[in-house]
Amino acid sequence: MTDARVDRLREAASAAGLKAVMATNPASIYYLTGFDPLALERLFAAVVLTGGGGALLVPRLDEEAAASAPSGLARVAYDAASDGFAELAEVFDGARAVGVEEDHVPFARVLRLQELGADPRPAGALLMGLRARKDPEEIEAVRRACSVVTEVMERMFASLRVGDVEQAVNARVAYELTEAGATESHPLVLFGANAANPHGTPGEYALAPGDVVCADISARLGGYWGDLTRCATVGPPSEWARRTWEVVSRAQAASIAACRAGTAARDVDAAQRRILEAADDLGRCLHGVGHAMGVEIHEPPFLVPRTRDSLEAGHVLTIEPGLYATGVGGIRLEDDVVVTDGEPRLLSSLPLELREVPA
Amino acid sequence: MTDARVDRLREAASAAGLKAVMATNPASIYYLTGFDPLALERLFAAVVLTGGGGALLVPRLDEEAAASAPSGLARVAYDAASDGFAELAEVFDGARAVGVEEDHVPFARVLRLQELGADPRPAGALLMGLRARKDPEEIEAVRRACSVVTEVMERMFASLRVGDVEQAVNARVAYELTEAGATESHPLVLFGANAANPHGTPGEYALAPGDVVCADISARLGGYWGDLTRCATVGPPSEWARRTWEVVSRAQAASIAACRAGTAARDVDAAQRRILEAADDLGRCLHGVGHAMGVEIHEPPFLVPRTRDSLEAGHVLTIEPGLYATGVGGIRLEDDVVVTDGEPRLLSSLPLELREVPA
Repeated sequence: MTDARVDRLREAASAAGLKAVMATNPASIYYLTGFDPLALERLFAAVVLTGGGGALLVPRLDEEAAASAPSGLARVAYDAASDGFAELAEVFDGARAVGVEEDHVPFARVLRLQELGADPRPAGALLMGLRARKDPEEIEAVRRACSVVTEVMERMFASLRVGDVEQAVNARVAYELTEAGATESHPLVLFGANAANPHGTPGEYALAPGDVVCADISARLGGYWGDLTRCATVGPPSEWARRTWEVVSRAQAASIAACRAGTAARDVDAAQRRILEAADDLGRCLHGVGHAMGVEIHEPPFLVPRTRDSLEAGHVLTIEPGLYATGVGGIRLEDDVVVTDGEPRLLSSLPLELREVPA
Repeated sequence: MTDARVDRLREAASAAGLKAVMATNPASIYYLTGFDPLALERLFAAVVLTGGGGALLVPRLDEEAAASAPSGLARVAYDAASDGFAELAEVFDGARAVGVEEDHVPFARVLRLQELGADPRPAGALLMGLRARKDPEEIEAVRRACSVVTEVMERMFASLRVGDVEQAVNARVAYELTEAGATESHPLVLFGANAANPHGTPGEYALAPGDVVCADISARLGGYWGDLTRCATVGPPSEWARRTWEVVSRAQAASIAACRAGTAARDVDAAQRRILEAADDLGRCLHGVGHAMGVEIHEPPFLVPRTRDSLEAGHVLTIEPGLYATGVGGIRLEDDVVVTDGEPRLLSSLPLELREVPA
């Protein structure tokens, strides 16, 4: 499966006039080779030569782990005394026009490539274009991640009680996700006024009657992310919570319905904005309606007003409209969908309803 | 405190002939402004003009959080319709020679800066040179992080039992660190043969009599990391474990003693290597002896054979020699120290001893 992806990259790179492509984003390396590097300051790269061949380049320390990856690419390991660029130059074998992931590769590495006589050129869109069109195996992996997030989310809501501390609830959710096999997770369960900030940080606040709960839980399992958000109130919903939930759920349905091949990504965002901005007495619309996801939790295309991307079959998107009222709270609803040649397909089956925690 | 750091940066940048410095690494932004960005795809930057002034540039979504940071720098927020570069150009106010963090800033942003008429130049060493010399407040923050890691480590060893599953133990440690206020953590508690891989991944393996346990626990609290490693055996130590622990503890003592102002960073690594390589019947020395840490878990200087850096007073270093025997296990011992004008000072007080888990 990874070798078919390498072949597709080779073809696309050749059509773009490149002699080689060097992937350095760990997520792209994983996509192309099945090897999931813990990339810190040392160089990891998946190099594909358009003339054939290439290599997975890793520090010596990771040689064994890289050897067991499914990729058919050659393996090159470099010693602690090297920064990996001499070994990289050998892999390039004189290639000058080298495509790089310009949104990921740091300036310093571009300067090193230039010193080696290469002419690094932006090729991120080429690689991300491939990664964006998920194959059935990848879609299935997102569905499995969603199903684990669903279980943990339901358990969290079922056990949530007045007096629970925000930070402890998030720690417990992270624990359960790890226990269930997540290699990474970002639980963001926010209470009351803190939920009015979509980037809020869980703190010492204890859940109180009347609070809204906005639970955004994402986790990476089997290499792929699932990302879902549901809301609750403590006790019966206030008039604000009931109306806001109703508006946001309409915005979500409209945005999901807009996820069709050929649609401009910004039109999916426009679908939420039309509905949310008409309800500006309830709160503000503070972010784009969503983004693609897969090996990374945030991938292009981004469903925001300023993008020029269009949707294609195979895109896996998270759709997460929300309304936020300072001092009151926030309501967000999030599901993951795959764009097809026909109707968009949900990858999760978590009931949308506004939950109620006993007051 | 952050404003004094900005002043030091302004001075250093001016001496280097720059008109501006643009920090984009979230850790550098935190260091310079006290604002800790959750940087995903959108642009965050702390810009310091050598002629005076500058700004903390953030997406509109983060405007409120940025406003509450202690920095005296102006705040500039940009809307969802912008990528932030037009607003950035206004902050630059015509500056051409702009220092960037070349190990962090992606190639794409360098190209955008060039389009705006700026001439981006590597200035990472300048910024990291400042960040490397920790002020007393930062040293105290690392000490506090170490004391939380110490507590969680001791509790983990005290409760560890035969049959415990590696993945669950790591999840539990992460949970306890979060509960104690950690905003990030990297527990890496490995059992038996898995401990022979310093980058191993916790799996489904259950702890068995005779296993070695290598527990590397790091956490970020109050903005700064603490990072400690201790080992145990299940039941009395084997001859291999006893001898290896003894060699590694000697290597650690020698490396810590070498952490003096003016010493070449590679000589600290040489201090471990001399001792570990003489014991190559016990296992292999697979990595440098350590690295600096602070706002990030890995910061320069790196204590590896190929570096040309030297130690200075105020450097906070983690010293972590280890020996690894494939199929058997690994022993690593890690403490955090601060380089002073005299003796190196330990920032942790966790007993070094080889623990014993009941068999």
